[in-house]
Amino acid sequence: MIIKTPTKFFLVSGSADGFSLLNAFDGALLTSGVGDTNLVRMSSILPPGCEEVKPPPVPLPQGALVPVAYASITSDVPGEIISAAVAIGIPKDSNRAGLIMEYSARAEEGVVVEQVKKMVEKGMETRNRPIKEIMAISATYKLVTIGAAFAGVVLWD
Amino acid sequence: MIIKTPTKFFLVSGSADGFSLLNAFDGALLTSGVGDTNLVRMSSILPPGCEEVKPPPVPLPQGALVPVAYASITSDVPGEIISAAVAIGIPKDSNRAGLIMEYSARAEEGVVVEQVKKMVEKGMETRNRPIKEIMAISATYKLVTIGAAFAGVVLWD
Amino acid sequence: MIIKTPTKFFLVSGSADGFSLLNAFDGALLTSGVGDTNLVRMSSILPPGCEEVKPPPVPLPQGALVPVAYASITSDVPGEIISAAVAIGIPKDSNRAGLIMEYSARAEEGVVVEQVKKMVEKGMETRNRPIKEIMAISATYKLVTIGAAFAGVVLWD
Repeated sequence: MIIKTPTKFFLVSGSADGFSLLNAFDGALLTSGVGDTNLVRMSSILPPGCEEVKPPPVPLPQGALVPVAYASITSDVPGEIISAAVAIGIPKDSNRAGLIMEYSARAEEGVVVEQVKKMVEKGMETRNRPIKEIMAISATYKLVTIGAAFAGVVLWD
Repeated sequence: MIIKTPTKFFLVSGSADGFSLLNAFDGALLTSGVGDTNLVRMSSILPPGCEEVKPPPVPLPQGALVPVAYASITSDVPGEIISAAVAIGIPKDSNRAGLIMEYSARAEEGVVVEQVKKMVEKGMETRNRPIKEIMAISATYKLVTIGAAFAGVVLWD
Repeated sequence: MIIKTPTKFFLVSGSADGFSLLNAFDGALLTSGVGDTNLVRMSSILPPGCEEVKPPPVPLPQGALVPVAYASITSDVPGEIISAAVAIGIPKDSNRAGLIMEYSARAEEGVVVEQVKKMVEKGMETRNRPIKEIMAISATYKLVTIGAAFAGVVLWD
């Protein structure tokens, strides 16, 4: 392997307004405690035996390159509700990988959370991998002018 | 360099249906043998002297962070045909980098493969770098409800 | 940390035409001096104490995996003007992280540069982090057939 396999993880989420769509996204990262890092997006597996760090060790070291699976959404439509959520399917068999799913929509937080959990269930079903537990985290924002919602699983070591 | 330069590569592809667009993408990754890893997407060069691993060492170690150049496409339009392809231009001069191109479209597999190969030819022409060989891999899917096609070049060490 | 935190950076930009949108993007990378590397995109912080390499050490080693924050835009609308820019807010306090912002639009270069600088100002304001200096780089392209503009901050070690 070229890059070390992560051994720890934690969940973060947040929302914010901002001067531009990217500023709002940046604000949502700051609210989540990962705003001064370099997020490297990846698709989206929890390595076997990966352990949760609780509470999240935020804020993270400034400028660190951090692998993360995340959902995010931005909007500039006043009054609109936006939500982002991630969920992890933790397998019963701790020698198998868990599955991370991401979902965001112009919808209420509860709708988005329900959908992302269902996505995890279906993905673990595809793997014939019984689920011990589903963890989830989410964020929502009701638009004033420009805003963002973010939810992510940070992999760590 | 911050991350080690890869020395090996292999080609993978697959397609699948799924409960959601992301589940279909996840299914296509599983079909390709890279479904339980953390893909880190990159643009898209084959390092000089990088050697093909044959057959692909799939499934890969669960949860590993894996650099990959890929094309993918999802759809939820019943009856639609979707295809994804990658191609690599291997240079005559083994001290030079090869070029990876990605292409996907709502089109037949043959059309997409032809286009991605032409993209490699043009990109190597831009570099004034004679081609020894073009390698390609592709996947296609005819939609029932929700589906995805995926083709990628995995870099490895 | 899983991946080493970068200690150096440099700014690059370029534009090009091309056979396809991806070929144009590839051409813009070549013009920028980072065209034969594997760019890994990240969100977008300058680690504390990160030092500029001047002039940029381009071309970079072929095939290297290179973390980069970038803005890019492609188009196939003849006559259209496209521009991409990145800016970095260097903090007065050298123990704090700097902020990188990216912006691209179907607009004149000056408009895009002004916007991305304002985005940096606002983002540093959100952090209550006084700015010592804003650095920026940009590229623009007036479309003939197919073209791309690219501007990026490469992190290095």
